[in-house]
Amino acid sequence: MKARVFVTLKSTVLDPQGQTVHHALNSLGHKAIADVRQGKYFEIGLSGGLSREEALREVETIAHDVLANPVIEEYRVEILD
Amino acid sequence: MKARVFVTLKSTVLDPQGQTVHHALNSLGHKAIADVRQGKYFEIGLSGGLSREEALREVETIAHDVLANPVIEEYRVEILD
Repeated sequence: MKARVFVTLKSTVLDPQGQTVHHALNSLGHKAIADVRQGKYFEIGLSGGLSREEALREVETIAHDVLANPVIEEYRVEILD
Repeated sequence: MKARVFVTLKSTVLDPQGQTVHHALNSLGHKAIADVRQGKYFEIGLSGGLSREEALREVETIAHDVLANPVIEEYRVEILD
């Protein structure tokens, strides 16, 4: 079983990395880009024997405790079969 | 219109960052984790007036030329309405 975790800064938190990418893209001529926000992406392989619910609970715990900083970041978990 | 770009190292390329996260999770007691690979995630806002096909072409170009290094990384683009 596989899981994906997306971690992004909360929308109220300034994202200087994304702004830098945005300015770079505009100066390279990509004028259609209105906004860029950058985050982290994790592909997690889970060993067999877990149900979908157990896998979701395990990965939610990991995302909350280790992968993201809930003070300034939000995360989203997807479980793939 | 919004787009998402996921950039990950090719599966043949070693991912020391992901391995470090994997070992950290195992040592914290998350034994069900078999593998972790880390990548980058971009949320891109596009200004109006682009068709879905134009947006996809624009974001594919940006992903290939700027956001990813195609020698060692692969990318995936999603267009959201």
